[in-house]
Amino acid sequence: MAAHKLAQTDIAERPGQVDSSDGIDMGVLPSLMGYMLRQGHLCVSQDFFRVLAAENIRPPQFSILEVVSRNPGIRPSDVAASIGIKRANLVPLVTALEQRGLLTRASAESDRRAQSLHLTPDGAERLRYWHSVIAPHEDRLAARLGAHGRDTLLNLLKNLVRG
Amino acid sequence: MAAHKLAQTDIAERPGQVDSSDGIDMGVLPSLMGYMLRQGHLCVSQDFFRVLAAENIRPPQFSILEVVSRNPGIRPSDVAASIGIKRANLVPLVTALEQRGLLTRASAESDRRAQSLHLTPDGAERLRYWHSVIAPHEDRLAARLGAHGRDTLLNLLKNLVRG
Repeated sequence: MAAHKLAQTDIAERPGQVDSSDGIDMGVLPSLMGYMLRQGHLCVSQDFFRVLAAENIRPPQFSILEVVSRNPGIRPSDVAASIGIKRANLVPLVTALEQRGLLTRASAESDRRAQSLHLTPDGAERLRYWHSVIAPHEDRLAARLGAHGRDTLLNLLKNLVRG
Repeated sequence: MAAHKLAQTDIAERPGQVDSSDGIDMGVLPSLMGYMLRQGHLCVSQDFFRVLAAENIRPPQFSILEVVSRNPGIRPSDVAASIGIKRANLVPLVTALEQRGLLTRASAESDRRAQSLHLTPDGAERLRYWHSVIAPHEDRLAARLGAHGRDTLLNLLKNLVRG
């Protein structure tokens, strides 16, 4: 059921056309960074879901585990800010990871709102496995971009986001 | 209220960090195209919302009007496929555009399911105005990417999506 729900909310959308090869005139869309970034993100997300389908992991959950892994004891609000999602949207993702035994949420006695996050040994092991799956997934997509294409893309996106 | 709802669902998420400049170690995330494409898309989407806040228009609605404008009489299912969104997700967007008088949905007498979409004169006028607003919005963001940066980015994304 969870996998089905993921399919409904995330995998269902497919990258659209980037030109008029299918007889449809896309107008200015392929010349807009906003449109093309959405298409590019959809493309990579779908592939991520496909290769990690059996793991029932969503990209933001991977990002959460990665950040908690590198910053043990980090607060949920700092995780949310670091990966760019709302605190309210983080909570159910963290709860799901906690219920799967991948992450723990500890509250300070003095302030129950000051939670700190840690990976469990199981969480650290899953994360290592996901790294091993994601690396070839990214390499395969990067092969479409030619030599140095991935580095160029990442640098352009870094400059765009930093503003 | 509609603008508030947009803010809740779309503008609320902000690009996260791309490196550890804020004291948070982002691990492998800044080296992943999937993560960075999401951050890049968030960044451009937010700016789109900001410059078009008064227009109450979402990026997919702009895409729909653009495709209908270029392909008068196109069927909703072809619009959905061309821009990469589910037919079920297209329907409320088209309905909203119709209610605003920007687009018409005509059914063939022989087959009520075979709808065709056309812009209204108002829709064509709004679309022209949005073009005039979006162009400088994209130019401003593209300035972050250096000379030829936008062309390079668009070409890389095209190759990525075409597969």
